[in-house]
Amino acid sequence: MDGNAIAILGGTGDQGLGLALRFTRAGRPVVIGSRKLERAEEAARKVRQAVPEAEVEGLANEQAATRASTVFLSVPFEHFAATLKSIREKLVAGQVVVSMGVPLATAVGDAAVRTVGIWQGSCAELVAALVPPGVEVVSAFQNVSAHRLQDLAGEVECDVVVSGAKPARRRVMQLCDLVPGLRGIDGGPLANARIVEQMTALLIGLNARYGVPEGLGIRFTGLPPS
Amino acid sequence: MDGNAIAILGGTGDQGLGLALRFTRAGRPVVIGSRKLERAEEAARKVRQAVPEAEVEGLANEQAATRASTVFLSVPFEHFAATLKSIREKLVAGQVVVSMGVPLATAVGDAAVRTVGIWQGSCAELVAALVPPGVEVVSAFQNVSAHRLQDLAGEVECDVVVSGAKPARRRVMQLCDLVPGLRGIDGGPLANARIVEQMTALLIGLNARYGVPEGLGIRFTGLPPS
Repeated sequence: MDGNAIAILGGTGDQGLGLALRFTRAGRPVVIGSRKLERAEEAARKVRQAVPEAEVEGLANEQAATRASTVFLSVPFEHFAATLKSIREKLVAGQVVVSMGVPLATAVGDAAVRTVGIWQGSCAELVAALVPPGVEVVSAFQNVSAHRLQDLAGEVECDVVVSGAKPARRRVMQLCDLVPGLRGIDGGPLANARIVEQMTALLIGLNARYGVPEGLGIRFTGLPPS
Repeated sequence: MDGNAIAILGGTGDQGLGLALRFTRAGRPVVIGSRKLERAEEAARKVRQAVPEAEVEGLANEQAATRASTVFLSVPFEHFAATLKSIREKLVAGQVVVSMGVPLATAVGDAAVRTVGIWQGSCAELVAALVPPGVEVVSAFQNVSAHRLQDLAGEVECDVVVSGAKPARRRVMQLCDLVPGLRGIDGGPLANARIVEQMTALLIGLNARYGVPEGLGIRFTGLPPS
């Protein structure tokens, strides 16, 4: 397992691919996971095309999850639990799983401007209930526009609220610095994902009302200089 | 009833007083409401002290609610329903009630970094369930720092997500322009208050973690120029 590497399960989707582009551009090895190996390999090719120096590989989710100390879950909410169940036997203590999930009501055929309730409180807490002991779960990156991530020429003007146990949270906050414009914000305990995940639905509505398909971001004002 | 006036029920509290200062400073007549007449009068005196040109009056909530076309509810969540029940007979069609409420868990003796669930979905929707027909409810101003509102020398660097039926929503968005630094954001239907109200608890946690008692604000990035 490569401590420097980042696995992105669902890395074939818009947001996962965007992160893969940004992280490889920043010099980090990336493993893209997908349910289907061919789709993962195809996404890895796309990354290499855009970032010639990219150290990137496409693998089935189960294999991808074993390759990196930090594993991003970037699949649609309706596939979250199933994806996690398919890889959890492979996870080992010390790994950090980053939940990017948002319980959009599209999961039940309703609109993306609304959400569904999750028994555990949030998508991130659902993940926390499913990982083996010693695996830390961190909530982050829900509100970052996929479009802006993929546009390597531009900055992603957005704060990323990072929630979870402290050492793992710090590790993920540092990953935010790899993407120009992103800023990791100390979001406290994992349960705050309940709030952060909802904000994505609000942003999706704002994108539509203001006609910004590229996606809005958020910033916190009044923070002390870091 | 003065179409230009703004009533602020609970205007003796930190945030209500801050709005009273800002709105009178901007030249709008303000009526401060409180359960106790003397406390309302005292708050009006404070406003006149800070803003000598202020057109401001202190009244009991029931009277204050009849004086303005726009009525802010700025009481702690645990007093929301009771306050509304005490004034609803006085409300008439065409008035706009602005819900600033946040269901902080302090209402049940827990911490302000967490919230309690509301059957109707949000504090604003609870209000909507209690007002007479023809009275519009708008959700706004939950995330604006009381401290920064009261500091008349400074700008309040914060976006205000305004949710509710369209004409009333527009009216409240325009009120945001009265406060230097505030920007009204079209937050869509009232039910989005479910998300916006939660964000206050997140901000309260961030204020503590980052040591910013003056209070952080939020900004949306990527909005088209207005």
